[in-house]
Amino acid sequence: MSGVHNFNPGPAVLPAEVLGEVREEMFDFKGTGISILETSHRSKEYQEVNDRARSLLLELLGLGDEYEAMFLQGGASLQFVQVPMNLLGPGETADYVVTGAWSAKALKEAKLRGKVNVAADTKTDRGYTRIPRPEELKLTPGAAYVHVTSNNTISGTQWHELPDTQGVPLVVDASSDCLWKPHDYSNLGLLYAGAQKNLGPAGATAVVIRKDLLDKCGGDVPIILRYKTQAEKGGLYNTPSCFAVYVIMKVLEWVKARGGAEAMERRNREKAELVYGVIDKFPRVYSSPVERESRSCMNVVWHLPSPEKEAAFLEGAARRGMIGLKGHRSVGGCRASLYNSLPVESARALAEYMEEFAAS
Amino acid sequence: MSGVHNFNPGPAVLPAEVLGEVREEMFDFKGTGISILETSHRSKEYQEVNDRARSLLLELLGLGDEYEAMFLQGGASLQFVQVPMNLLGPGETADYVVTGAWSAKALKEAKLRGKVNVAADTKTDRGYTRIPRPEELKLTPGAAYVHVTSNNTISGTQWHELPDTQGVPLVVDASSDCLWKPHDYSNLGLLYAGAQKNLGPAGATAVVIRKDLLDKCGGDVPIILRYKTQAEKGGLYNTPSCFAVYVIMKVLEWVKARGGAEAMERRNREKAELVYGVIDKFPRVYSSPVERESRSCMNVVWHLPSPEKEAAFLEGAARRGMIGLKGHRSVGGCRASLYNSLPVESARALAEYMEEFAAS
Repeated sequence: MSGVHNFNPGPAVLPAEVLGEVREEMFDFKGTGISILETSHRSKEYQEVNDRARSLLLELLGLGDEYEAMFLQGGASLQFVQVPMNLLGPGETADYVVTGAWSAKALKEAKLRGKVNVAADTKTDRGYTRIPRPEELKLTPGAAYVHVTSNNTISGTQWHELPDTQGVPLVVDASSDCLWKPHDYSNLGLLYAGAQKNLGPAGATAVVIRKDLLDKCGGDVPIILRYKTQAEKGGLYNTPSCFAVYVIMKVLEWVKARGGAEAMERRNREKAELVYGVIDKFPRVYSSPVERESRSCMNVVWHLPSPEKEAAFLEGAARRGMIGLKGHRSVGGCRASLYNSLPVESARALAEYMEEFAAS
Repeated sequence: MSGVHNFNPGPAVLPAEVLGEVREEMFDFKGTGISILETSHRSKEYQEVNDRARSLLLELLGLGDEYEAMFLQGGASLQFVQVPMNLLGPGETADYVVTGAWSAKALKEAKLRGKVNVAADTKTDRGYTRIPRPEELKLTPGAAYVHVTSNNTISGTQWHELPDTQGVPLVVDASSDCLWKPHDYSNLGLLYAGAQKNLGPAGATAVVIRKDLLDKCGGDVPIILRYKTQAEKGGLYNTPSCFAVYVIMKVLEWVKARGGAEAMERRNREKAELVYGVIDKFPRVYSSPVERESRSCMNVVWHLPSPEKEAAFLEGAARRGMIGLKGHRSVGGCRASLYNSLPVESARALAEYMEEFAAS
């Protein structure tokens, strides 16, 4: 769109094809003569959108009938609460692997609800710079679940393989990398993802849950916050964030048409290699605080030698139509978010500019 | 739009002017070169949208600095939980006035959280057909709050004046009639409204709270569900439902440009009188189960003499481009939703058709 390269960390870039369709249908959704924004969530037309989005999500994740998919509200932040409310019974322990600011927040909410064990915490005085190795995880035998954040948007680290929980339900916050590549989900109990990074716009949260876990919830949990309440209605117990789900459906169609998670992985690795390649080529200009094996393909973070250099870098980027490159306010530096929807050309333009800046 | 009259109960009709602007800005929001759907909630551009929507809401409600406005997620259904979580302390009692299916649901969630008193319940064997008179309310002296549903979408009743709670904080679920007319809010503690009926699209919930109530919440409440958490950040503690808030802002601008709540009341009364006029003129064809003094100006409900007549009526309406007229599945019959955004011409078209149908 108009020469802008959108590296926003979320809400983030969407496929131009999707925005074009949304625009096209703004006044007339599927021949109804009204906008999707004015369409009842009980209408046949919306039910089709919701069902299609749910089945596409399961299909693209490679999950079968033993899972239920739904689109809820409240973001990952509400899932930090709903997960222990629903899955952490009295006397049970939940394992949390803390690899960044978001998993720390998830842990904090869980502590208000029940017994938790920190299976690993990779924070050092330089912040969170890596994903723990399998042998570092102190897992509780028979834990209610193991919670991980699969990609850490702020610190720029990512689990390239999900941990083996030996049959304990794995709970994954995949907000910033859902469908970035195929994963082995054989231990998956629950996956949640705020949509605004890798799945669509803000306002809806994808939740995928193994059906046998739906019955775990206690009767003291608020009715609207029980997964079972929503799962029984396909996420339509109350009015959902219809428009967000409609855009998510289109993004999922777009992912499927391009070859699914396998194709996304090739595309994402290509983009990540372009940017990391320049960082590695100019170590005196660009420094990454992240351990090499833990590097995220979604959020690449780096620092420049001085605040002045950083400001000059960002200014030059802005002049070239590259936006969203400022690092998270809590860690500073620069960050490029390379989600599924980001075109390879945007990553290439950034890499070229970084090369040029380093040489100047 | 294309001759359709949209009487959907929610998600519902939006002003054509608003949809036009949304469409126009789909690829380029405020000269940024990207869509609002791709814009960070931390950007200057989105902060302006959020702040504008919050201040417009307070202004149009006629509320001052002692209130905080924010746009949350989860719908009114999550407010059913958040209200008692935040405002019902140990040893306190909350009064609930039950006038329909939604207040009954609010009561059910509150009962899971603390002590409640049913101040009135207008259900009879014919369902909920009226709003209680002031002298019927059995209010608890010193109650934590009094909860009312200001308009009952399913049963078609409405509080034309809010009850006098004698200084006890009044909590209003205004999901289906927020800003339908000016109200005396002198006792208002909290107002919430799922946006998808009278304020905008689905996906955001307006919450207005008197600031002194923000400190009531206990430390065991989930952090994300404390009003204080969100109020301190203007609703931006976590990523909000940005697009929904953006459309709400435009709808509020539209309301303001037309003269605010006073103008909406004139417009809404005109529409309601058109439809109720025909119902009253043909009592053998159209029967309203609602007590006359409790009639809603937002949702007009009526029955026809037989299921066959009703089917014929709805078919004829559909042929004339009138949609969303089927009553709620729990009560049957017909229902016309006449929210702020519905053009007077749509109500007139419906009244003319009803007159024609009755005479045929």
